Amino acid sequence: MLSVSLDASPRRRADTLAVEEPLELRIDGSPLVVTMRTPGHDVELAAGFLLSEGIIRDDSDFRGAIHCGGPGTGGAENTYNVLDIALGAGARLPESPARRFTVTSACGVCGRESIDEVERHSSFDLSADASRVDAAWMLTLPDRLRAEQAAFDKTGGLHAAGLFDTATGDLLVVREDVGRHNAVDKVLGWALLQGHLPLTGTVLQVSGRASFELVQKCVMAGVPFLSAVSAPSSLAVDLAERTGLTLAGFVRGASMNVYSHGERLVLPSASASAPA
Amino acid sequence: MLSVSLDASPRRRADTLAVEEPLELRIDGSPLVVTMRTPGHDVELAAGFLLSEGIIRDDSDFRGAIHCGGPGTGGAENTYNVLDIALGAGARLPESPARRFTVTSACGVCGRESIDEVERHSSFDLSADASRVDAAWMLTLPDRLRAEQAAFDKTGGLHAAGLFDTATGDLLVVREDVGRHNAVDKVLGWALLQGHLPLTGTVLQVSGRASFELVQKCVMAGVPFLSAVSAPSSLAVDLAERTGLTLAGFVRGASMNVYSHGERLVLPSASASAPA
Repeated sequence: MLSVSLDASPRRRADTLAVEEPLELRIDGSPLVVTMRTPGHDVELAAGFLLSEGIIRDDSDFRGAIHCGGPGTGGAENTYNVLDIALGAGARLPESPARRFTVTSACGVCGRESIDEVERHSSFDLSADASRVDAAWMLTLPDRLRAEQAAFDKTGGLHAAGLFDTATGDLLVVREDVGRHNAVDKVLGWALLQGHLPLTGTVLQVSGRASFELVQKCVMAGVPFLSAVSAPSSLAVDLAERTGLTLAGFVRGASMNVYSHGERLVLPSASASAPA
Repeated sequence: MLSVSLDASPRRRADTLAVEEPLELRIDGSPLVVTMRTPGHDVELAAGFLLSEGIIRDDSDFRGAIHCGGPGTGGAENTYNVLDIALGAGARLPESPARRFTVTSACGVCGRESIDEVERHSSFDLSADASRVDAAWMLTLPDRLRAEQAAFDKTGGLHAAGLFDTATGDLLVVREDVGRHNAVDKVLGWALLQGHLPLTGTVLQVSGRASFELVQKCVMAGVPFLSAVSAPSSLAVDLAERTGLTLAGFVRGASMNVYSHGERLVLPSASASAPA
């Protein structure tokens, strides 16, 4: 890599890049989808993707997964870029090949051929989740997530997602990926494989924006709080409002915006924080 | 929207959100794909997507497009979320339904079912592009792009892509979208519809990171320079190196990193910028 600066001579430097590689998911040997992802936690990624798509509902639907030889190698060489998944009896694959999926590093909810298919049906009802969180605690989550981002500091190129428990305040899991949807899928897939669904009383903190798809992933996993460092989209707010999800955006420093279901937040008392 | 701050009482505020809506693309009436996008420049978005996917090569392959009635309305109401496209004789649709596409707000290169299909073949040879640019000029592009981002300032939620002419220094076009791939597709679709392909001697400046897919889109349109404000991925650098694209990342302030084909850059003379 050539480092170019107006103030100094150009110089060659070693560089640490965020790793992006294709991962082909197969179901019982049949190709389903290719996602561009950062290698690592591939089984969780697969589980989270299948959950988001409504193909699996819990860990009993996901019998196992194995990395197998990649294409063009005759199976002789394992590239760790092909993952074959065995589903349980309760799993529901899309009916036609045209319902198949494709994903990129920045993509997580795919397989839609028409607008009627955009919204998935969840097994979980977020509006029944009675958990509450203190707004001041929620404001600490972006920094706690950032502190765990080992790879970002080196590459500047990874998104992160972290799951926090509202009852204990604990960070449950953090995952990173070049794709923000993949980072979320890895977190939710971890939870599914641990048998933690639905994720009642949890906050999903993400390092970027809140799109429609990220809200939908939360709904599919039963996560009642989504907190984003950056902006939400209009459709993300619409879906959050309808499904009972508390959506916060621009969660930075001492302030945040709450776009839906603010009744779950215990708000700071202005008088308490004012100078005495 | 509820604005929550540790230093003040919570208050309700009107908010401007980045608009995200689904767009269903149809080819001669048959559904092809749904993308989550910011409405506006839909025809350009469609043309850029089809170019990126190798379905069309130039404006003769794209005969026209019309917004039609959405699903569930009996066609009576035009939601402007369904776009029907008429292709020319030279267009090449994927052969099987399983090769169909799906895209989200953050996604642009889809339709891959196996790893062998990840890379598209371009009509254009970037390595034959003899254009050169001054590094100091290239460093000005992020600010020039940012100055044109009308919607970002209001919402904080839109990605942008801008195309610059290396010969004249002019900004040719800027497009914004909730999805970074969509912003690029809108720019490249604009160029295709204007009959400007291949985009010899141009720089594509993007507001975010440089992924594999963004490099591939440049290659498909014949753009020799990709400049990103943030980090590239490993696969983006690999593809740029192989295809002859000059890839710059962390293009900020007075410095940038050049990851491939730096021979196209006229570098600053250290002695000229040093104090006399």
